[in-house]
Amino acid sequence: VIPASDVRTFYRCALGFAQRARRVVLARRGRFRKSLKADSSWVTDVDRAVERELRSSILRRFPDHGIVGEEFGRHRPEAEFQWILDPLDGTLSFTHGIPFYGTLLGLHHRGRPLVGVIDHPALGLRYSAGLGLGSFKDGARLRVRDLEPGDRVSGEVLCMGDRARFAACGAAPGFDAVMRAHPAVRTYADCIGHTLAAEGAVGAMADYGIKLWDLAATQVLVEEAGGLYLRTYERRSGGETVYGAVFGKPAVVRWLSRFFT
Amino acid sequence: VIPASDVRTFYRCALGFAQRARRVVLARRGRFRKSLKADSSWVTDVDRAVERELRSSILRRFPDHGIVGEEFGRHRPEAEFQWILDPLDGTLSFTHGIPFYGTLLGLHHRGRPLVGVIDHPALGLRYSAGLGLGSFKDGARLRVRDLEPGDRVSGEVLCMGDRARFAACGAAPGFDAVMRAHPAVRTYADCIGHTLAAEGAVGAMADYGIKLWDLAATQVLVEEAGGLYLRTYERRSGGETVYGAVFGKPAVVRWLSRFFT
Repeated sequence: VIPASDVRTFYRCALGFAQRARRVVLARRGRFRKSLKADSSWVTDVDRAVERELRSSILRRFPDHGIVGEEFGRHRPEAEFQWILDPLDGTLSFTHGIPFYGTLLGLHHRGRPLVGVIDHPALGLRYSAGLGLGSFKDGARLRVRDLEPGDRVSGEVLCMGDRARFAACGAAPGFDAVMRAHPAVRTYADCIGHTLAAEGAVGAMADYGIKLWDLAATQVLVEEAGGLYLRTYERRSGGETVYGAVFGKPAVVRWLSRFFT
Repeated sequence: VIPASDVRTFYRCALGFAQRARRVVLARRGRFRKSLKADSSWVTDVDRAVERELRSSILRRFPDHGIVGEEFGRHRPEAEFQWILDPLDGTLSFTHGIPFYGTLLGLHHRGRPLVGVIDHPALGLRYSAGLGLGSFKDGARLRVRDLEPGDRVSGEVLCMGDRARFAACGAAPGFDAVMRAHPAVRTYADCIGHTLAAEGAVGAMADYGIKLWDLAATQVLVEEAGGLYLRTYERRSGGETVYGAVFGKPAVVRWLSRFFT
């Protein structure tokens, strides 16, 4: 067990790292070079600049911790503490000027999420959580209220990621069935859907075809807010593991996850 | 023809009206009462408070103009100038704390759009346009760049409204076909999709099953930014007319509208 004072230290440091990342993103917004990666997703020089900033900040403060980042791979994979980084989640949105991208940081201890931060630079919003400390949106405590007797799932807004990602996991039939079954399904793709679910604005989100760093901040953010997080899919593919997860208000998560099992 | 100086006056007044509306919305955020309307959409006391504020501001400044509002019907329907109001577009989002709702104002002269404003109070963003004056995002000129030779529609992000609204117009097959045909279709429903299309962040949006006030600001906003606006559907139903439209970058609008004709 990690002492609460240590979690608080990690949490405060993670907020500081996110603040440095935000400065890099905002300074480079609209001035980036993009290129296609091997998996045919986009990367920009801003993704790389942000990850370099995060890595050097983490190494300076916690030289014996490990780091896994989307752009630069693993450092100290044997360490108990692992920082998991997505410098720019929603690069497609970033390159098009859609303001719903973000920087993701998770700190895991032996695979267990301790701290999570999702920062939305263009919206000026930062969501953060620490195990046992609670979840916060710019300092305000988040508390997800589950459905109460008489509340209906149809009164919620649901969220899913891009259909192509579901299709890559064989989950397109589930995606299509949710679209038909519910009157308000929004594809607020990438991290904006995760933060909307963590604060209970959308009832739940199903996100498929995503990697470790896309999810590393989400579980602790959702659970510390009182939500339910279910990992519903996991498959190794080409040396990497691809995940699916459903998270948000517990009753809505149970309803939504049935389309994917 | 309306003199440019008159359009400028109307435009400046519309910005002032939107500012007053924003204050009402922000003061009432999170403190509202909601109820179901006859068409089974939600309305809140904030919708009504905003429309009352807009109506009294318009009547004071332009006593001989007409007004059509979502909540309180028609005033002076015979007037040449008509202000068309949606006090809170995206009420479902507003009631759930999803920040992508907005206040919509359009001024039409004999049916022709002269001025359009879409205000996003929770995002602190205001989009506005006047015929011959250009389109603006918080004062910065918007210019939509069309696809250039070598650019592909698949590289754009596309946007659609809620599927249930398409289904109500018999356009669900088009919705589903777009979802399958394109790798990045986002349902950024309601006015947030309109403003993302007006600035070229999404390549184009298709929005169906919507009313006059949902569209009253959009055409001039898109066209003055250099985009293309097509009305692709119109049907009277239960005393009201329901519309479908596709708007954004011209080449993307032409591609997307083929799914709905």
